[in-house]
Amino acid sequence: MKTSILAVGTELLFGQTVNTNASFLSDKLNHMGFDVMYHFVVGDNPARLKAKLAEAFSDTDLVIMTGGLGPTQDDLTKEMVAEYMGRDMYRDDIVMDMLAGFFEKRGRKMTENNVKQAYLPEGCTPFYNESGTAPGFALSVDGKTAICLPGPPRELKWLWDHGVRAYLEQFMDKKMFYRVIRTIGIGESDLETVLMPVIDGQTDPTVATYAKEGECTLRVASQRDTIEEAEAAVNEMIKRIDKLVGEYIYSYDDENLNEVVVRILKEKGLTITSAESCTSGLFPAAITDVAGASEVMSSAYITYSNESKINEIGVPAELIDKYGVVSPQVAEAMAAGAKARAGADIAVSVTGYAGPDADPGHEAGEAYIGFAMGDTVGHHDILTSRNDRRWNRNYLLLRMLRAVYLLIR
Amino acid sequence: MKTSILAVGTELLFGQTVNTNASFLSDKLNHMGFDVMYHFVVGDNPARLKAKLAEAFSDTDLVIMTGGLGPTQDDLTKEMVAEYMGRDMYRDDIVMDMLAGFFEKRGRKMTENNVKQAYLPEGCTPFYNESGTAPGFALSVDGKTAICLPGPPRELKWLWDHGVRAYLEQFMDKKMFYRVIRTIGIGESDLETVLMPVIDGQTDPTVATYAKEGECTLRVASQRDTIEEAEAAVNEMIKRIDKLVGEYIYSYDDENLNEVVVRILKEKGLTITSAESCTSGLFPAAITDVAGASEVMSSAYITYSNESKINEIGVPAELIDKYGVVSPQVAEAMAAGAKARAGADIAVSVTGYAGPDADPGHEAGEAYIGFAMGDTVGHHDILTSRNDRRWNRNYLLLRMLRAVYLLIR
Repeated sequence: MKTSILAVGTELLFGQTVNTNASFLSDKLNHMGFDVMYHFVVGDNPARLKAKLAEAFSDTDLVIMTGGLGPTQDDLTKEMVAEYMGRDMYRDDIVMDMLAGFFEKRGRKMTENNVKQAYLPEGCTPFYNESGTAPGFALSVDGKTAICLPGPPRELKWLWDHGVRAYLEQFMDKKMFYRVIRTIGIGESDLETVLMPVIDGQTDPTVATYAKEGECTLRVASQRDTIEEAEAAVNEMIKRIDKLVGEYIYSYDDENLNEVVVRILKEKGLTITSAESCTSGLFPAAITDVAGASEVMSSAYITYSNESKINEIGVPAELIDKYGVVSPQVAEAMAAGAKARAGADIAVSVTGYAGPDADPGHEAGEAYIGFAMGDTVGHHDILTSRNDRRWNRNYLLLRMLRAVYLLIR
Repeated sequence: MKTSILAVGTELLFGQTVNTNASFLSDKLNHMGFDVMYHFVVGDNPARLKAKLAEAFSDTDLVIMTGGLGPTQDDLTKEMVAEYMGRDMYRDDIVMDMLAGFFEKRGRKMTENNVKQAYLPEGCTPFYNESGTAPGFALSVDGKTAICLPGPPRELKWLWDHGVRAYLEQFMDKKMFYRVIRTIGIGESDLETVLMPVIDGQTDPTVATYAKEGECTLRVASQRDTIEEAEAAVNEMIKRIDKLVGEYIYSYDDENLNEVVVRILKEKGLTITSAESCTSGLFPAAITDVAGASEVMSSAYITYSNESKINEIGVPAELIDKYGVVSPQVAEAMAAGAKARAGADIAVSVTGYAGPDADPGHEAGEAYIGFAMGDTVGHHDILTSRNDRRWNRNYLLLRMLRAVYLLIR
């Protein structure tokens, strides 16, 4: 079913609030097989609100509206929808009782503008709101359905779970299933070129690629008569994708790389430490961002200066003198030293130039990632060719995580 | 000037990505005096994209489009805009050179679909992109202006600062000057109450408050005939604000607290180290996020386990036994120990429960921040009463930075 999401709220147009409701609803609706074609945002203005409602209904049959259901004068969504769909308003006794109870509980007096919240369009399906004062509702007229929900995300989510989802199931023709594959080490255009044979002319399942900093995501989605058929089609497509780019895939279920690494470390009962120069804390921060990481990480080292590399994790001074502090040799010595000092099973290290400055003969974006596990010690050469400190640091974090992933997968 | 923001991207309609670009642009545009009337989101579909572009232009004169400028097949924004505004595409030599350089640097071959990125509508104002491969552009035809920008927020922000903002100034009738004041230690509502005498009934300069995690930002803006008048009005207002809340202000120029701390440390020639449990690397990452931080930080310690607190930075085991690892005594011992081990002038530490779990008798959000400078050793008690791991970690980072700021300001 073709669907639009229409958010009402000047705060969105001021940029004070991000429209997370649209993302939440889109995600839920897509999972149910609804075809979300548009998002609209309009301010608290009757004429423009009505115009956009008409636009939305011009080529979609379901319009979900968020916001503008509050008690204040500029909350006009309900009235506009009723007017547009040719319905009068009635006072809903259940809402009245709920409002009375709400204010009594809080020992507050219900004001006139709160009573306004008890009015709904005649013939609508009310969604009674136990998480706030504004009820939601659905109104179907001549094959067009409008659903109005309150703007506060917490109330919107509560109503989704308590009425809206069940109401929408009547419209589900096809069932959708999708999986999100995460890759690292291959760019979006390379990925598409490699996948062209399976993507090209593909209508179902669909395969969409999204580039993120340093990594790339694949979304494989199918709409079929049953969820089982859709799931089978998706998994069949993923098998084909795996044959072509499996080496770059680190998650078939939209996990972040740090979550994948911590999960595998836990599964295998391995502990990890790190020694960082230019990323200075990003790696342990990413590992411990996952709850329960204390099982896998006990300590980590930020060794920004040469002295600290020598004193904290026993990098031989002569190695730094001979090869320079930004070198594969020092990266490996950092990893080996950190592993020994922390008594961990695995250590990963990085030494490099995040930028903007680099020593003579070097450039920002040059870095070496060292790793040590058991008797294995090695390194990865990196040259981002970017003089963007933040980008380089985040990219190096991803590459450190990937270096560990390649060791333990 | 009436403005629409039109985002292109199926990932938005799938709910995979939140439309933060619309919020970013809306905020910037409103502050420049543009009237943002609509947000639209449409998928990578030529017909619908063109229809929404027409809708947007039907009652706004400026349409800023985001996304759909990538190298892949489904990136169609440029072509649609050119077609809608009746312009042919030309191959821009500067973009070609930039692309060639981009791929040469990375030792990668430029594919055909990358060349596509060098084509722009004839007569447009290109915004050359040094933060990615997709250029942006502005195209004005018969009083209607379309601006196309890449979807990745980092690139969009880079182009805003490097071309778009300056381009848009031609549409501003008045000149705008603003400064952003950063505060910490006072809540938004308290701040507004204290500032009421200077905010109330104020039309120019305007004073807007924005609450962020653990801190609060003040934006003082003035629009006058000349930039000098606007600047004078803003600075006059800031004097009045300073009298009322000066003690909470850490920056008058929208610096982040980590930038302020590093700047002061450099000015005073002081070095710093840290010992972290639950924030595990966030502090050194924040310090070294500022270029040139190597002057002020040589090493830092992530001591997640009890053993590492004892072995790495010499926290007395009996202190942990007696008071527990999450205690003011251990926080102070961590700071003193880290300072001694690193030979730094200042050390800051944190031990606490980020959540979701906490030991019996404790709750998530309980933490202690220790600090040591010269002979001074002390701590701050923290209880966020939140069981939100990410929020707690970020808040604790902010409080560590503040603890240092209070020592050195």
